[in-house]
Amino acid sequence: MENKLNIIGIAGSLRKNSFNKMLLNELFSVAGENWNSQVSGIADIPLYNADVEAIGIPESVTLLGEKISNADGLIIVTPEYNYSIPGVLKNAIDWLSRLKTAPLKNKPVGILGASMSLTGTVRSQSHLRLVAVMTEMLIMNKPDVYVAQAQNKFTEDGKLNDEKTISVLKKFSDNFTNWVIKIK
Amino acid sequence: MENKLNIIGIAGSLRKNSFNKMLLNELFSVAGENWNSQVSGIADIPLYNADVEAIGIPESVTLLGEKISNADGLIIVTPEYNYSIPGVLKNAIDWLSRLKTAPLKNKPVGILGASMSLTGTVRSQSHLRLVAVMTEMLIMNKPDVYVAQAQNKFTEDGKLNDEKTISVLKKFSDNFTNWVIKIK
Repeated sequence: MENKLNIIGIAGSLRKNSFNKMLLNELFSVAGENWNSQVSGIADIPLYNADVEAIGIPESVTLLGEKISNADGLIIVTPEYNYSIPGVLKNAIDWLSRLKTAPLKNKPVGILGASMSLTGTVRSQSHLRLVAVMTEMLIMNKPDVYVAQAQNKFTEDGKLNDEKTISVLKKFSDNFTNWVIKIK
Repeated sequence: MENKLNIIGIAGSLRKNSFNKMLLNELFSVAGENWNSQVSGIADIPLYNADVEAIGIPESVTLLGEKISNADGLIIVTPEYNYSIPGVLKNAIDWLSRLKTAPLKNKPVGILGASMSLTGTVRSQSHLRLVAVMTEMLIMNKPDVYVAQAQNKFTEDGKLNDEKTISVLKKFSDNFTNWVIKIK
């Protein structure tokens, strides 16, 4: 593809060997040449505090917002903590929603998630879709990607060894490419 | 009452003049002599990271857990950020859920919320009730306290000037006293 899409990805887990970070890398690997893919961290986003905001938005938030604004699409991979969105991911979104540049607004977004449970982040993603309404993210509807029992689906070096999951990632990346182009 | 209940309260907003902090103080004021009330902050709870947990739970988390374990009941007042639980509050709960002492498990909990919107944190509280299932908090069902348009219901020095809200806080504190005693 001549005009590659710039896609930024963030993971809702700060753990180094997080299954969700692995899933993000595998999605980018599957998308291959079609995307200029970039992973961005959220470990340096501080706790949201309106008093801090009144003084000035932290630089880490502004930088993440710029990266998202400059990207054609955003991928969010999220674990599920206590039946909902991890606090660390929600906190990053809370900050991003305060930027005057509104980087999330009308941004094509794809969401996926991996967990060791049988339900594979279905509740976390469900809450994230509601958060998307307020922040005006445009989350692609299908395919749903709920990687359940993730501990059985990745090799020790973080590669997927589950054909069904690889296949759904292929479909996801194709659909997301179309979704981004459709919205542009 | 001879045996006062020890009640700890946390607010899901870090802002100094937060309506939710005001609401918490007003609830404790209404409960008066019946409770030994204590407010605890969450501003010093770091972002959850499983790699940090593997090295050792941060002291601020352990201390908050101890306070909750030692209390007869927990009050959580929550704003609504982007149609859900504030990241900062969820993050504190995520950490607390990792303590071996399980301070939230089987703890009588009361939740309330205030916002400037017309819906008064109904979505945030709804998500919090789901989080309570996983963390095994025992959240009192009624009365619901959704303080909508909070900017019109507090004086400049943080006192409620809305009779209906004061009345529901009275009912809430009476019911919560009974809820704590019932579960004990």
